[in-house]
Amino acid sequence: MTTRAVADEKALDRVTFFSDAVFAIAMTLLVVQLSVPSGPAGDLGHALRSRGSKFFAFGLTFLVIGQYWLAHHRVFRHIRRYDLGLLWLNLVYLLGIAFLPFPSAVLGSYPHSKLAAVFYGSSLFVPSAIGATLWFYSRRRGLLGEVPEKTRRQIETRGLATPLVFLVSVPAALLNVRLAVLCWAVLLPLTRLFLSVWIE
Amino acid sequence: MTTRAVADEKALDRVTFFSDAVFAIAMTLLVVQLSVPSGPAGDLGHALRSRGSKFFAFGLTFLVIGQYWLAHHRVFRHIRRYDLGLLWLNLVYLLGIAFLPFPSAVLGSYPHSKLAAVFYGSSLFVPSAIGATLWFYSRRRGLLGEVPEKTRRQIETRGLATPLVFLVSVPAALLNVRLAVLCWAVLLPLTRLFLSVWIE
Amino acid sequence: MTTRAVADEKALDRVTFFSDAVFAIAMTLLVVQLSVPSGPAGDLGHALRSRGSKFFAFGLTFLVIGQYWLAHHRVFRHIRRYDLGLLWLNLVYLLGIAFLPFPSAVLGSYPHSKLAAVFYGSSLFVPSAIGATLWFYSRRRGLLGEVPEKTRRQIETRGLATPLVFLVSVPAALLNVRLAVLCWAVLLPLTRLFLSVWIE
Amino acid sequence: MTTRAVADEKALDRVTFFSDAVFAIAMTLLVVQLSVPSGPAGDLGHALRSRGSKFFAFGLTFLVIGQYWLAHHRVFRHIRRYDLGLLWLNLVYLLGIAFLPFPSAVLGSYPHSKLAAVFYGSSLFVPSAIGATLWFYSRRRGLLGEVPEKTRRQIETRGLATPLVFLVSVPAALLNVRLAVLCWAVLLPLTRLFLSVWIE
Repeated sequence: MTTRAVADEKALDRVTFFSDAVFAIAMTLLVVQLSVPSGPAGDLGHALRSRGSKFFAFGLTFLVIGQYWLAHHRVFRHIRRYDLGLLWLNLVYLLGIAFLPFPSAVLGSYPHSKLAAVFYGSSLFVPSAIGATLWFYSRRRGLLGEVPEKTRRQIETRGLATPLVFLVSVPAALLNVRLAVLCWAVLLPLTRLFLSVWIE
Repeated sequence: MTTRAVADEKALDRVTFFSDAVFAIAMTLLVVQLSVPSGPAGDLGHALRSRGSKFFAFGLTFLVIGQYWLAHHRVFRHIRRYDLGLLWLNLVYLLGIAFLPFPSAVLGSYPHSKLAAVFYGSSLFVPSAIGATLWFYSRRRGLLGEVPEKTRRQIETRGLATPLVFLVSVPAALLNVRLAVLCWAVLLPLTRLFLSVWIE
Repeated sequence: MTTRAVADEKALDRVTFFSDAVFAIAMTLLVVQLSVPSGPAGDLGHALRSRGSKFFAFGLTFLVIGQYWLAHHRVFRHIRRYDLGLLWLNLVYLLGIAFLPFPSAVLGSYPHSKLAAVFYGSSLFVPSAIGATLWFYSRRRGLLGEVPEKTRRQIETRGLATPLVFLVSVPAALLNVRLAVLCWAVLLPLTRLFLSVWIE
Repeated sequence: MTTRAVADEKALDRVTFFSDAVFAIAMTLLVVQLSVPSGPAGDLGHALRSRGSKFFAFGLTFLVIGQYWLAHHRVFRHIRRYDLGLLWLNLVYLLGIAFLPFPSAVLGSYPHSKLAAVFYGSSLFVPSAIGATLWFYSRRRGLLGEVPEKTRRQIETRGLATPLVFLVSVPAALLNVRLAVLCWAVLLPLTRLFLSVWIE
């Protein structure tokens, strides 16, 4: 039905609405991983402190998915037409987003494990790479509206920088887990800040 | 109040919005079935590998529900009026969708069980059959807008092909679980691809 | 700020959207109560059959909340203005809806317990009574648009019939659990069907 | 891309929609903390009564988050433009909201623990303080539309009163847990009621 591109604003609104819902649910479900303590009241302080890495994974993943949401936002603002390929790419992208509470919980439970960090980095790489694909696909298939040259360059540079940082974080995790954490929590915001100042 | 058909765009928007929310939540809740490992860090690799069938059930069910969402999308684009019957059919349809995380988790936990596969296939057959009913009901009751002949034929062929594949998968599962998996993961996309090329 | 009535369509849309989201989430969360079996594969058949009452509670509660959603839908279609009182009534109403997965899970786990049935009936009575209050409050405060006399009578009769059935189901549960189940699964739909034919 | 303020109604709608979804999910997820009893049917009465503090924490947190939602509502009604700073402030604000099911569950499980009460009060202070920041940031950056002087004063007084009450509740909890509960359940509504009458 939609192997050719269709321009239907209402249908596109439904796609972005649906995507927003998946983002919002995945982010809010992250809290489930913070298992409520069940020991005696006297151990509550210890129980909360021992959840430090879970809190960190919760906050980090929330903000990273939030940033993916902003990026999705930026891309879909320029999409005017859709075809079946775009709908499926978006669905696979959302599958990657909906999966993230799992690697986040694994990282929070195994904060010193290289494997957990590799798993987390790879799980974040996949949707960011599909997100970049989504943009280039839309551009090549003529699904975009008018995009000013500068805006286009900004979206593409940022869209490639994020998967790159996550790709780099995977071998970094094999060397040292802290190095991977630095990639996610420091290098990623820095890169984006730098790009937004530099390209502006 | 609505035993006669009502044309109220805002109310219909609320129905599609509500349905989208149920789809999005059911899909994102699937991640809960991927129980986070709790053993020692050294066993994490083994724990992740042993979740292979859970990952598969998660991804497959996400994409199948996603496809149901696309189909719901296609049907509701043409609905212009609603009556109480449509609202209740849609509610029972959504009940079938909201149930799917359960058979998906059962399949992920019992990947070699014929019963789990029969249960999964039947659970997916029900909403797809109700979905087809929803279309024919709307058509017979005059709730649709102008639908081009070709579009109508496409929607109806696809709408019947999906429950047919799931119906076939139930006896297939009784023979061999892998055969049922082939139905869901290979036959279903192939059928749809074939139909979209053939009818176009 | 809004102790006087405000007519702001966009803000009202946000209220109905938010309410729809709570309905959709409460309904879809019901599936969590269907705990996934964890025994050996050979016991799966038994494990599924023994969940009969959980499946029943899941389906019943889904459809009852769905019907509450339709009722909320009907009421808010006529609301044109809002004040702080309406917003808080709606919030307390949604609190009652968001609570329902709990009594539903209790009923599913204790299908023969009079206490579970009383708890379930009372938990459903509360939001339906608040729902009726919401309507009469809106009417008395002049928050409604033009409502045809017949529509008004329909909404009010139905809006009072639902809490009445749930109120009756509480002493019925004290006599016999099956009697209460009959109230919810048979008397409620019958009453509504009767009313919709009778008033039409 | 948005270091300068952008006036784009559709994009702003997407931001408020997304925020509403996070609010609705966080509020509805609270029910998960009411763990379903699993003992024999004869102990159900006792099991429900012993959940008193969980029910209280559930209801209180639902209404407090609901009130935050109303406040967010009030603020975003006046926002006409957005920049990257606003989007990130809003994201951090939502992180605080999405976290609340955890301190709520801790308070429900440890109703007599000072630490649980301090944790709860602080967890509610953070988003209310960020919410106030969000308003002043928007005002200073010229992101607001025309705001009548009286409305502005109302929003700012209320916006500061809420974090103040939660800030006061933290040392109150160190003295006596009941005192903190009084702050949340009595002082907070009273303050807001007083303000809305006094400023009106």
